[in-house]
Amino acid sequence: MRYPKKPLFILPVLLFLFSLKTMAQKDYKLWLQYDKKTEVELLSKYLSDVQGIVSLENSATSKIASNELEVGLSEMFGKTISLKSKVEGDKNIIIGSKEVLSSDIQKEIGNFDQINDEGFIIKSISIKNKNQIVITGKKEVGVLYGVYHFLRLVQMNKSIKNLNIVDSPKTNIRILNHWDNLDRTVERGYAGFSLWNWQKLPDFIDQRYIDYARANASIGINGTVLTNVNANALILTPQYLEKVEALANVFRPYGIKVYLTARFSAPIEIGGLKTADPKDAAVANWWKNKAKEIYKRIPDFGGFLVKANSEGQPGPQNYGRDHVDGANMLADAVAPFGGVIMWRAFVYSEHDANDRAKQAYAEFVPYDGKFKDNVIVQVKNGAIDFQPREPFHPMFGAMPKTPLMIEFQITQEYLGFSTHLVFLPKLFQEVLESDTYQKGKGSTVAKVIDGSITKTKLTGIAGVSNIGNDLNWTGHPFAQANWYGFGRLAWNPELDSEVIADEWLRCTFSNNENFIKPVKAMMMESREAVVNYMTPLGLHHIMDTGHHYGPGPWVSNLSRPEWNPVYYHKADKNGLGFDRSKTGTNATAQYAPEVAKIFDTLETCPEKDLLWFHHVSWDYKLKNGQTLWNGLALKYQEGVNQVAAMQKVWNTTEKYVDEDRFKEVQMLLEIQYKEAKWWRDACLLYFQQYSGKELPVGVEKPTQSLDYFQSLKFPFAPGN
Amino acid sequence: MRYPKKPLFILPVLLFLFSLKTMAQKDYKLWLQYDKKTEVELLSKYLSDVQGIVSLENSATSKIASNELEVGLSEMFGKTISLKSKVEGDKNIIIGSKEVLSSDIQKEIGNFDQINDEGFIIKSISIKNKNQIVITGKKEVGVLYGVYHFLRLVQMNKSIKNLNIVDSPKTNIRILNHWDNLDRTVERGYAGFSLWNWQKLPDFIDQRYIDYARANASIGINGTVLTNVNANALILTPQYLEKVEALANVFRPYGIKVYLTARFSAPIEIGGLKTADPKDAAVANWWKNKAKEIYKRIPDFGGFLVKANSEGQPGPQNYGRDHVDGANMLADAVAPFGGVIMWRAFVYSEHDANDRAKQAYAEFVPYDGKFKDNVIVQVKNGAIDFQPREPFHPMFGAMPKTPLMIEFQITQEYLGFSTHLVFLPKLFQEVLESDTYQKGKGSTVAKVIDGSITKTKLTGIAGVSNIGNDLNWTGHPFAQANWYGFGRLAWNPELDSEVIADEWLRCTFSNNENFIKPVKAMMMESREAVVNYMTPLGLHHIMDTGHHYGPGPWVSNLSRPEWNPVYYHKADKNGLGFDRSKTGTNATAQYAPEVAKIFDTLETCPEKDLLWFHHVSWDYKLKNGQTLWNGLALKYQEGVNQVAAMQKVWNTTEKYVDEDRFKEVQMLLEIQYKEAKWWRDACLLYFQQYSGKELPVGVEKPTQSLDYFQSLKFPFAPGN
Repeated sequence: MRYPKKPLFILPVLLFLFSLKTMAQKDYKLWLQYDKKTEVELLSKYLSDVQGIVSLENSATSKIASNELEVGLSEMFGKTISLKSKVEGDKNIIIGSKEVLSSDIQKEIGNFDQINDEGFIIKSISIKNKNQIVITGKKEVGVLYGVYHFLRLVQMNKSIKNLNIVDSPKTNIRILNHWDNLDRTVERGYAGFSLWNWQKLPDFIDQRYIDYARANASIGINGTVLTNVNANALILTPQYLEKVEALANVFRPYGIKVYLTARFSAPIEIGGLKTADPKDAAVANWWKNKAKEIYKRIPDFGGFLVKANSEGQPGPQNYGRDHVDGANMLADAVAPFGGVIMWRAFVYSEHDANDRAKQAYAEFVPYDGKFKDNVIVQVKNGAIDFQPREPFHPMFGAMPKTPLMIEFQITQEYLGFSTHLVFLPKLFQEVLESDTYQKGKGSTVAKVIDGSITKTKLTGIAGVSNIGNDLNWTGHPFAQANWYGFGRLAWNPELDSEVIADEWLRCTFSNNENFIKPVKAMMMESREAVVNYMTPLGLHHIMDTGHHYGPGPWVSNLSRPEWNPVYYHKADKNGLGFDRSKTGTNATAQYAPEVAKIFDTLETCPEKDLLWFHHVSWDYKLKNGQTLWNGLALKYQEGVNQVAAMQKVWNTTEKYVDEDRFKEVQMLLEIQYKEAKWWRDACLLYFQQYSGKELPVGVEKPTQSLDYFQSLKFPFAPGN
Repeated sequence: MRYPKKPLFILPVLLFLFSLKTMAQKDYKLWLQYDKKTEVELLSKYLSDVQGIVSLENSATSKIASNELEVGLSEMFGKTISLKSKVEGDKNIIIGSKEVLSSDIQKEIGNFDQINDEGFIIKSISIKNKNQIVITGKKEVGVLYGVYHFLRLVQMNKSIKNLNIVDSPKTNIRILNHWDNLDRTVERGYAGFSLWNWQKLPDFIDQRYIDYARANASIGINGTVLTNVNANALILTPQYLEKVEALANVFRPYGIKVYLTARFSAPIEIGGLKTADPKDAAVANWWKNKAKEIYKRIPDFGGFLVKANSEGQPGPQNYGRDHVDGANMLADAVAPFGGVIMWRAFVYSEHDANDRAKQAYAEFVPYDGKFKDNVIVQVKNGAIDFQPREPFHPMFGAMPKTPLMIEFQITQEYLGFSTHLVFLPKLFQEVLESDTYQKGKGSTVAKVIDGSITKTKLTGIAGVSNIGNDLNWTGHPFAQANWYGFGRLAWNPELDSEVIADEWLRCTFSNNENFIKPVKAMMMESREAVVNYMTPLGLHHIMDTGHHYGPGPWVSNLSRPEWNPVYYHKADKNGLGFDRSKTGTNATAQYAPEVAKIFDTLETCPEKDLLWFHHVSWDYKLKNGQTLWNGLALKYQEGVNQVAAMQKVWNTTEKYVDEDRFKEVQMLLEIQYKEAKWWRDACLLYFQQYSGKELPVGVEKPTQSLDYFQSLKFPFAPGN
């Protein structure tokens, strides 16, 4: 219950004192709120369409599906929709995979070749003059996905009459990468600590494990890497594998496979060997036995994710071998059991004087076609590191004979942690839509990773998880949308991000158009806002050191040159930006000629990527007629203004949103606004030293001195 | 809603899959469930007794009180009990402090001198022939405590007719000590990580801060030390004080003061001074200014808790000064603002060859009467360190001129982390009831710390918090009872632990006698069970190294002798136990002669403390006729049997408890049972090397070899 609202005549902080409901809860439920329908007419329509639920199967997966339908519909309809033991009467929702459907139902459904093994069909049929809705698939997991799809229709107030929905995921591996350490800290985690309570596993099954699986299944995620890519070999010991097995048992009926990160030096650290050389027979044998041991516990174990010879992690190069040697050795170990190796291409060396943006391509492209069939190379969306904006990674256009999966970062390492509202599917979509021209126009990144260009069988999308043990899972209520949106794009990389925002808002908050319209617009603009107040016009990697919290364009004292922001922005008296064109590092040459040409030329290079590819004079005239300096300053100001506008929008939503989430988002937007100004002021004061120019009209005066901003320290910033 | 139960014909782990309610929630609500009354007659009685609520005040605290009443009663009665703007009609609950009561109500209430500043009076009165219930106190916080007391009556199905309850807390400082680090790890924390999200403070007020304050206020806790006693000076910088201030603002209207730990070397680390010598004028001045700075932000700041010259922490002895010098210097800094210094007596030195149990007494007792008025010395309940059982600390009988506060550990560092069900108020009560004989018979520890023996004005009880960011706050649902019980005993150190168990069970789970009776008995026995399977007959500190998880009686290789379990149990061919009698270290002499005599003599020493005070032959005959060896073995077995019995009890409660908590406790008891056997087997196999005797009839054969138990490693055990 709610207490009556009182006039607010006390200190602002006291606002929070009056939330005397006995629970903080709505935000725990994510997009599965199943709010009771309050629209009378709509409700009566639904009730006239659905009388009962019939589940034709009896396995764990189908019980989850039927229970979810029962709970979801009953809550939304405010009336128990019961599970029946057999089909009687009409208006039943009949769920079951192809093999358990009666032949007359099968005939009505039609061709199952329209879907793949994880796909589903939802169809309104008439049998013996009785109308029924059938949710089916080739396998039970498809049925489960279909059930969640059907529930989403009802969550969104859509009609469930005359349904004929046929859908399949476009990628095989739709996976979260948890950068979770065994001590439960989470690298780049901003939503508390790891969900995995290793201390209490395997015997204590936290309800959150189940709720996590359920949330993932509802958006089609079918894999999870439990451990950090900066790996600890102990996860591969029996003491921990027993715990991993317990999690795998929980996740299995939700269609989710467990994967682990493999520390390349594990044969030494836990195997007692003297080497981890992939060409050493004892090493290969150790991994084969380890795989056997794991698959004995977890028959559907997914495989390994490996970060090797990257940022200090051990790898095959420690032994004079290469990535192919390392990946293929591991691939052989898991191949007998159907496992895969996800080998990360995020490599760059302090001993390589070349532009960091060029190094992964240079190292990996020559390996094209040399990896075993069960290896997939995992490539970050851009060539640097999860920046607010990066041009797509050139590797996506350059390895036609190698399965490539894209790695997005859902956690906001460089995008304001869990305090900034940034709708990331907009960023993901921008990358996925980018045209590599690998096989001519239309060879988008989406079409590369779903295999339709390269015809590789193995396909996938990975997202670095933003999930922690915060009550609301993701720290920011709107960060839930990034988890949701990642899952939806993994299912269909060509989905429009605006559609995703619409779905998420309706399932999470409200179907009221007066809420949806402005808040959806706010979400869609939020990504450009963060680019504007952090790194406009192609700037990148100017965050503060280590924790990456806040601006640090001045940092120049780190041991590795490519870890310093000054390496990336190259501000000087002449101008700003990293010349990666033909006249510079020629990184542009790593793209297809059609793309390279556009990026190479100052006039055709999109201004959003300008300083990524060019060192540009402070007086350079932008398309809007402003000089670079003025245009840059105005972009920073625009970012701040956009956040102010987001606050205004949110303040209008109080009547559509529960009090807790309304206030949470309000407080977070206030922090975001403060920090947007911090970014603007710190960066402009710093760059002003080089431009030597005044701030243009329309840009607010900085609130503090550059010295002040440079003095700020954040010793316990999370995720570091 | 709940889905219908299904027959269970699948793997045990799948049991958990069917919890398809959309929320894990009951256990978040702690003892403030406010479940709707289902007993028709009872409900109609309540409804005939209460018509409305009238709050005579308008401050933040009174709004909390009136809202809590409104929400609590409305939920329990299933009917809105409204807040009225003035007294009209009868059967109102009228709340307000003395000064706002009308004179006719004041007359009915009677003498306010019966209560202290935090006390309350709840009285059924009749004014102008109208029956009303008044909840009042000298101050608003007393009213708030009265409201929670009244709600508890209703939670427990007690009559609210003819009330005349007069109650005041018996101690001034009722405080939680959070051993929370700034990186959100919690030393000895087993319930996740710190509640304090320093990253998002001060601008983001997590709902949990409010829920935490509310839970504490409901049991009378009035202080919280936010930071670890192993302190970090950064908490005293403006960057963090701003965040502390935000928390203080949240807690203030709940009657909770904020305290911090003071790192003694802070003047060097954050003050730029060359020394932290308490006799140095610049140092004293630095602390004075720091206090001024803090009190400017937080006018009701409680003061500092200090761990100095203990386990490597800096302190006055680093400069040739003593504890009095250190404590008094800090006391002078906070005195102008009414602050207190809680100075810990937990000291022992690796350079002191004396029995560790004697060192704190030896060091502190000579200081009796030398501390400033606003210093209170914080003494652990026993002379070693929060063991499953320790005799009371001799300091409680030995410092008549010094305010002493007792420090209990609510978090279960040595008692099974958050996996073992151990009802700690039983342990607390045993200590509080112990007779120090300081001023003759009846000089219990309770009467020392509530000031009735020593007549000190400053009194207090501290509990090392077991609270973390787990959904259920404390990791184990029953560990909530330890937080609850600590608060109740801090309010009244003479409260019976069985009364506490009864209250907690009714408020948390159910009033059904078929549930209460067996589960209460289980709780009351749980503490003796853990003593039996871990450290029976006075054994102590034989836990494994560092993390203290599981048995480690064999550990003998640590750098400091008194960190090794072998130091404590002294097992050899002749027998077992630490001779602290006259013939040994003579630690018994630190007690009053009446107590010392009992402990000193083998025949009068309580067997529960036998091996604490005596080295006893393996063939020594216990009171039950068993030899020490056989008796020891049978005690270990008894502990295991007790856990098995607890499991049996819990399995009968399914119909009284929600599914989530029923299963959680069931899983945890299964772990506890496993670990009880582990303790029994490891300890008996180890001690058997010295006794050279067979296990007696009735003791199960060990499941593994001693080598196996000694090989176990727990590299990421929490809280370490």
